[in-house]
Amino acid sequence: MSVMMDPEALNAFMMREFPQVAAEYRVERMAPMEADVRLMVGDRHLRPGGTVSGPSMFSLADLAMYAVLLGMIGPVALAVTTNASMDFMRKPHAGRDLIGRARLLKLGKTLAVGDVLITSDGSDAVLARAGMTYAIPPKR
Amino acid sequence: MSVMMDPEALNAFMMREFPQVAAEYRVERMAPMEADVRLMVGDRHLRPGGTVSGPSMFSLADLAMYAVLLGMIGPVALAVTTNASMDFMRKPHAGRDLIGRARLLKLGKTLAVGDVLITSDGSDAVLARAGMTYAIPPKR
Amino acid sequence: MSVMMDPEALNAFMMREFPQVAAEYRVERMAPMEADVRLMVGDRHLRPGGTVSGPSMFSLADLAMYAVLLGMIGPVALAVTTNASMDFMRKPHAGRDLIGRARLLKLGKTLAVGDVLITSDGSDAVLARAGMTYAIPPKR
Amino acid sequence: MSVMMDPEALNAFMMREFPQVAAEYRVERMAPMEADVRLMVGDRHLRPGGTVSGPSMFSLADLAMYAVLLGMIGPVALAVTTNASMDFMRKPHAGRDLIGRARLLKLGKTLAVGDVLITSDGSDAVLARAGMTYAIPPKR
Repeated sequence: MSVMMDPEALNAFMMREFPQVAAEYRVERMAPMEADVRLMVGDRHLRPGGTVSGPSMFSLADLAMYAVLLGMIGPVALAVTTNASMDFMRKPHAGRDLIGRARLLKLGKTLAVGDVLITSDGSDAVLARAGMTYAIPPKR
Repeated sequence: MSVMMDPEALNAFMMREFPQVAAEYRVERMAPMEADVRLMVGDRHLRPGGTVSGPSMFSLADLAMYAVLLGMIGPVALAVTTNASMDFMRKPHAGRDLIGRARLLKLGKTLAVGDVLITSDGSDAVLARAGMTYAIPPKR
Repeated sequence: MSVMMDPEALNAFMMREFPQVAAEYRVERMAPMEADVRLMVGDRHLRPGGTVSGPSMFSLADLAMYAVLLGMIGPVALAVTTNASMDFMRKPHAGRDLIGRARLLKLGKTLAVGDVLITSDGSDAVLARAGMTYAIPPKR
Repeated sequence: MSVMMDPEALNAFMMREFPQVAAEYRVERMAPMEADVRLMVGDRHLRPGGTVSGPSMFSLADLAMYAVLLGMIGPVALAVTTNASMDFMRKPHAGRDLIGRARLLKLGKTLAVGDVLITSDGSDAVLARAGMTYAIPPKR
């Protein structure tokens, strides 16, 4: 399967469709069935103690899955998450961006299933793992 | 089991410990092993089309579980989510707050397990369901 | 919504379609969007120590969701589980049957979402909780 | 981290502790934080149509996680599953064994978290994916 949108096209699409969130994220890599997305960590993502909050990690996982899905099928603004299962394992390093590495395991006509591993930028230790399912709307 | 913090105490605690998020949420009911939390929906929670985003629903589920846990064991700022599994079923109504109803199913010494049902304010249709586990830090 | 199959019809259907498993389970109650299913615990469900194994509880949750789904839409042998998220909280009592109480939260055209609480027969303590999604095949 | 039990030791342990199930499974590979386990598919694992049932895949995922955990920490019969989240994506091939590839992502003192990919023997297509958490009992 070939990639239909590269990181530049994905970032431009996100900025146009989701301007509130797109400023915080950047798609850095797109390969067949895989994408890496960076969360540029700011104060609003932090919990007391300086670590990134669970909901911020959820958002990153959700966006990374969305990016890899769009990268494979092209711009479909209305794909929606139907299920997410997430394990939080380690506290993020303070003051570092997070990287979400998404992998599609199945790309069907109506459902896409994949998982996401989240790490601190520059580290291999997995902070959180998510399994996610997206519903793909039928073509008009 | 009896309740250790009522909604007023929970809201005061959240405002002190998590000022960024507490302005958006309000604990409305606390009963043994149960709590209801309101998300006061604003622009930053919305997706194109006016519905509340998945990550905003995740945040509400996370906060509702945290509230019911604190309500039962008292203020423990460092309890952390270790697992969350969430099904997204229906789109929220535009322009309405969301209500998260959390229920603790197990309150152990080190782990608390429960679930959360999310509805639009004034409606019974379940928008999303979450199963969540929190790790409780050992007492000093 | 009205019920399309009662417990007697559900048990007869299971016995015909899944004879290996049906002898171990019995649908005991069917109401709109709800079903109770009993696992008649035998040696093959046990782990050392006499408690029921995790996979046996998974099977019960899966079958209880299947029963409530069939009870609502009628006999569709090919509905399949697409996602299951399960929390195991307490050890079952030795020597007691298990009861799975399934509840449908959404019954769409292609997906059904619900949850299941598992208890030991005669006890209210929740042993395990499952969130489950079934895919419903399109009508021929 | 080094491996404490090789496949031969793991299979002998399983046969001794879980004789009912061990005859159906075989640990085939053990490496640091990784294990491969085979389910020798028989009639009792099948659904109408000849595919392996969901509960049989759950059992394989559970056993593969248990194997990799024991392989790393040594024989601890009482480790128990606390959470499992599973996506079922494709139907297994009829008449082929299943392989579960387990990977530990975190091995803490009280909790171990990992995931498992299930394939048909001789195929790369992922049939199911599981995220699992085991609780490790304190040492006596």
